Amino acid sequence: MSKSALISYFKSKTAEIGVIGLGYVGLPLVIRFSKEGFKTIGFDIDVEKVKKLNMGETYIKHIDSNEIEIAIKNGFRATTRFSEIANIDAILICVPTPLGVHNEPDLSYIRRTLESIKPYLKENQLLVLESTTYPGTTEEEIVPLIEEVGLKIGSNFFVGYSPEREDPGNKNYTTKTIPKVVSGFTKNCLNLTKSLYDQIVDQTVPVSSPRVAEMTKILENIHRAVNIGLVNELKMVAEKMDIDIYEVINAAATKPFGFTPYYPGPGLGGHCIPIDPFYLTWKAKEVGMNTRFIELAGEINTAMPGYVIQKVGEALNIAGKAIKGSKILILGLSYKKNVDDLRESPSLEIIDVLHEMGANVQFSDPFFDSIPPTRKHSLDLQAKSLTTKTIQSADLVLLATDHDQFDYELIQKKAKLIVDTRGRFKQSPNVIIA
Amino acid sequence: MSKSALISYFKSKTAEIGVIGLGYVGLPLVIRFSKEGFKTIGFDIDVEKVKKLNMGETYIKHIDSNEIEIAIKNGFRATTRFSEIANIDAILICVPTPLGVHNEPDLSYIRRTLESIKPYLKENQLLVLESTTYPGTTEEEIVPLIEEVGLKIGSNFFVGYSPEREDPGNKNYTTKTIPKVVSGFTKNCLNLTKSLYDQIVDQTVPVSSPRVAEMTKILENIHRAVNIGLVNELKMVAEKMDIDIYEVINAAATKPFGFTPYYPGPGLGGHCIPIDPFYLTWKAKEVGMNTRFIELAGEINTAMPGYVIQKVGEALNIAGKAIKGSKILILGLSYKKNVDDLRESPSLEIIDVLHEMGANVQFSDPFFDSIPPTRKHSLDLQAKSLTTKTIQSADLVLLATDHDQFDYELIQKKAKLIVDTRGRFKQSPNVIIA
Repeated sequence: MSKSALISYFKSKTAEIGVIGLGYVGLPLVIRFSKEGFKTIGFDIDVEKVKKLNMGETYIKHIDSNEIEIAIKNGFRATTRFSEIANIDAILICVPTPLGVHNEPDLSYIRRTLESIKPYLKENQLLVLESTTYPGTTEEEIVPLIEEVGLKIGSNFFVGYSPEREDPGNKNYTTKTIPKVVSGFTKNCLNLTKSLYDQIVDQTVPVSSPRVAEMTKILENIHRAVNIGLVNELKMVAEKMDIDIYEVINAAATKPFGFTPYYPGPGLGGHCIPIDPFYLTWKAKEVGMNTRFIELAGEINTAMPGYVIQKVGEALNIAGKAIKGSKILILGLSYKKNVDDLRESPSLEIIDVLHEMGANVQFSDPFFDSIPPTRKHSLDLQAKSLTTKTIQSADLVLLATDHDQFDYELIQKKAKLIVDTRGRFKQSPNVIIA
Repeated sequence: MSKSALISYFKSKTAEIGVIGLGYVGLPLVIRFSKEGFKTIGFDIDVEKVKKLNMGETYIKHIDSNEIEIAIKNGFRATTRFSEIANIDAILICVPTPLGVHNEPDLSYIRRTLESIKPYLKENQLLVLESTTYPGTTEEEIVPLIEEVGLKIGSNFFVGYSPEREDPGNKNYTTKTIPKVVSGFTKNCLNLTKSLYDQIVDQTVPVSSPRVAEMTKILENIHRAVNIGLVNELKMVAEKMDIDIYEVINAAATKPFGFTPYYPGPGLGGHCIPIDPFYLTWKAKEVGMNTRFIELAGEINTAMPGYVIQKVGEALNIAGKAIKGSKILILGLSYKKNVDDLRESPSLEIIDVLHEMGANVQFSDPFFDSIPPTRKHSLDLQAKSLTTKTIQSADLVLLATDHDQFDYELIQKKAKLIVDTRGRFKQSPNVIIA
């Protein structure tokens, strides 16, 4: 009875959904389930986040407070008490999977989550991991723990893996319209996982095992990391050949098959691209394999902030100035345009290094009033608004993130020197493409 | 007057067009110009090709004899006499640009062509190179030769570069519908080149210089070589993790943004992907740069035939057999499916090695009755038709190129052992994915 009962709870939208980890992935998921009429509970260890959510406030700019209020009206509330897991039908884990200092997978968030919920797991629950991770995680980390508790996976408890595909700031696709890959440890697990997500997304994509689903998500991110690494390398080659790489990429993009444009930049940011590929690198060593494309992409992409700083130095040098003592205005803090997401943003590293080298660093970003402290960086800077005066007073303007809100015409007109890492400006005597 | 006169010849389609090199690129170009009403002359050093064409016969399977007959009706003829260049308004060079034995660019076809036509160049001609090559070729190889002759580029003679984008066998795009990148040594050269191609393709894409156009074509091919190298590497990793890479790629392909599927295979073939990227590698050294993605892709893709042979050995070994003395049926000679194109085909290398190792090698390919001699290979084999008997009598069937004409159901049913390099079969006890 258990499996069919759960499926009918899902289909009738009477199942209670618990989402663990209320960040860029978990929060949109909560909102999506709420919109379809599910009662949802959000779990997080961050007391401040939980408070804000319960007051109907957002902490992610591209998610409107209004959406959280609607979710609350539909029964949503946030909590730090994991004992409430006992009342949940479907537990969805959306916690971070960062890298350790030696580029090794850090599964501590997943493991701590599992330890926290372990005492409250019970029969007829579905547990799905959404966090990006290496192939084998679901089978090696989750399955043994469920079995320890004495539950029988596939008959009275169900385990699935369904990778998140969130793309913060993407206006063309939403949680609902992005097809969702689903998998289960057993056939019953797959059926349940699929039937749950079928309620909230337009299309589910069932695959044969959690390891295939885990590898799928990693492949998507490896693909991006490698393609961006490739254009970053070619950007440096093209520059030496006096070729504008952006003109080349845009011309190649007119080929209607066999080519997809990727663009260079000042380095990788976000949770996915710079981090996830190394999960596979680490796991591949277990089977005696190397992932050389991932390592090469990592090496080149990691070197990009240094390349940008080198170009800044060269540009200032032409004007007879050193980095030390120069006023440098950084445009854009986020790791990609039009979002307020700072995770792994190369802007922070560039700011840190220029500051250490003695530059008088300023920044402007419509999404940030100041630089929030992150794990690696803690610079105390207030944002400048992008006025004629701010631009003119800088010895050099460095475009790090090309938010659409910036007034590029004004920048082009007023800046003494521009170092452009996004190809927004045409090459000219005072514009250096980096 | 010269420039505007030439443009009006182009627009009125009264200009006479000479195409040098009548292969996979030149022949479709001749046909395209003929269809638009231009009188065309085809130049080639291959007497046999010229004879065939003048009799209205084709030597490329995906180009119909009928098309050549129509071209002849519209005034087309082929010749080996380069003196006729003197009567031509637009000279389009479509000769091969292979690699030398040390992976260095071999521009000998271009250089010999230039030497052959040099005595016959005259005022008011447009010369366009279509061959894929490294950035700088047009400026460094063609421009000095024209200046030697005493012609003035941009005023009484015009030089352009417009890379071919032919994709033999592609049913969705033709020479006419594929946008064409055009460039010129001067502004007049660009205008003329654009105005010529505007008569025969739906869209031209003007870029600022020949070196940008040269780099564009190389980027398109680097993109493919690297993406295929990446999935080939991941195929080997996935195999060790017991993951079907094809299932993973197809699941990832459901992501509607940020991912484009590329598929692994037994190695690269064709003129573009295995060769062109190394043109940039070679040229980059001149400016002190390395192209590490290209070299890594080259290394991995070149190793794939060896990987396939290893899998063949492992598969036979399970059946207690050695490669030596086993009857191995290779399916598919061409480098890609549904075309009769053997250039750089990994099938040839695989056949050679298996033959040398003592296998009794047979092959089946609807596009070939026997193996034509190529630069590197000269094995005398007649094709087998793909019957139950042929399949059953083989100790192992190796799918090298997945032509749609093969009867996959029959192969699956009758083969003792299958090694599948194209993901056409589901993994099973007698199917090994390689």
